Amino acid sequence: MRTLLFAIFYLITINSYSQQPNQNKNTLFTAGFANAFIGGLYDGFYPYSKLKQQGNFGLGAPDKLDGELLLLNGRIYQTQHTGKTFEVKDLAATTPFSVVNYFEADKIIPVKKQLNKAALFKLVDSIVNNSNAILAIHLKGSFKSVKTRAFPPAEKPYIPLAQILDKQQFFNFKDIEGDFVGYNIPSYMEGANITGYHFHFLSQEKNAGGHVIDFVTDKITIEIDFLNNFAVSLPQTPEFQNFDFKQDRSDEVKSVENGKRE
Amino acid sequence: MRTLLFAIFYLITINSYSQQPNQNKNTLFTAGFANAFIGGLYDGFYPYSKLKQQGNFGLGAPDKLDGELLLLNGRIYQTQHTGKTFEVKDLAATTPFSVVNYFEADKIIPVKKQLNKAALFKLVDSIVNNSNAILAIHLKGSFKSVKTRAFPPAEKPYIPLAQILDKQQFFNFKDIEGDFVGYNIPSYMEGANITGYHFHFLSQEKNAGGHVIDFVTDKITIEIDFLNNFAVSLPQTPEFQNFDFKQDRSDEVKSVENGKRE
Repeated sequence: MRTLLFAIFYLITINSYSQQPNQNKNTLFTAGFANAFIGGLYDGFYPYSKLKQQGNFGLGAPDKLDGELLLLNGRIYQTQHTGKTFEVKDLAATTPFSVVNYFEADKIIPVKKQLNKAALFKLVDSIVNNSNAILAIHLKGSFKSVKTRAFPPAEKPYIPLAQILDKQQFFNFKDIEGDFVGYNIPSYMEGANITGYHFHFLSQEKNAGGHVIDFVTDKITIEIDFLNNFAVSLPQTPEFQNFDFKQDRSDEVKSVENGKRE
Repeated sequence: MRTLLFAIFYLITINSYSQQPNQNKNTLFTAGFANAFIGGLYDGFYPYSKLKQQGNFGLGAPDKLDGELLLLNGRIYQTQHTGKTFEVKDLAATTPFSVVNYFEADKIIPVKKQLNKAALFKLVDSIVNNSNAILAIHLKGSFKSVKTRAFPPAEKPYIPLAQILDKQQFFNFKDIEGDFVGYNIPSYMEGANITGYHFHFLSQEKNAGGHVIDFVTDKITIEIDFLNNFAVSLPQTPEFQNFDFKQDRSDEVKSVENGKRE
């Protein structure tokens, strides 16, 4: 009997270890391929139920580009072009493009000085001091201002994201508390991922959010998680099979990320 | 007691499932980053013991570029610049760059007609009919001719691979049986991976091999495994952190793969 109990204990231990393999801990997981998504592959293919197995923190796009997505503490939030923000409970819903990881802060830096976007990025750059690092970044606290955007649902036939920037809706928040969830992805990962700094926002009340365009911090904490693996799950769709990857979309990605028309 | 036994059985079942997650089955795993490896990062960092957990089939380079590596049926073989080929038993040894997967043939095509390299690649292209697919490819059978190469150990300070092509040793085999282990990797994965067709060879007697430069098939079977995920484990070394990714190395990769000097 004692042997049996020991065997059960052993199996439970091994099992918990296997269910969340070590590799996941430092892995940036991408569902979809950035350049294909930016190029017009807006149909969801990767279910949220699976996405939540790849991380508890991240950002992405809902099926058919119906706003913006954010993952925080294992919960998924959607901000639509109306500004409406809510927790997504239907885990059978799918995403065309999302980036997630299991967040574990390697560095925690309280910042009481007000910093604009450029100053904050410069500060993180100076702390990390390694332009080849993959960073997951969580900003938490109060912000003097936050400007976000969200896309309305795309209509078929889909055209590239850079050509529908006039459809995006902007939101300006003053003196707001909340979370920035995002990444700084090195240039050598261009193509599969959106490189550079990239954040989505969720207000503390979970009733406002969107893709971050600009901001000024007030009192925040910066949490940085260094990642050293990345994994990509590609859409198994005719649209992906036939997608023309030859076109250089790096300028398009920039204009989409900055929220500016070409 | 019956409940206890059932619990044990349940845990064993769950456990076996978790130890080899489904995602691995269709995942191309890369240890290292191709452009950094080609650029001179020849020091091994990823142990063979871990590599074997990511796949039972694949190819790569040994520590310090001491020849060429091949994985087949879960065993690792090394071919040195002398031509000496042997199974690697020391799993604590490390690789600077390897590409592996769990091979499961989705298509099996017997080919009795003699085909040169260009004709074989054209045949596979026509069977797959999808230039965005990630393919693991196993050729097995007899070959009229196989030309391979292997590098001698690199000396520090390391210089880019394209500048030491005069050091590679070539081997010509006639009427030989064996295995080609390799991939066709789509262009959108350039950077992290070596794109296009890429094979390493192992003779049936496991006493000859190398990176395949040219060949004519005799009677072979082509096995193709379609993959739809890829994962990359990056070196956590100062050399990788400081590596300059800005340089375009696509021409260098081509010359290295073809075995031709710039």
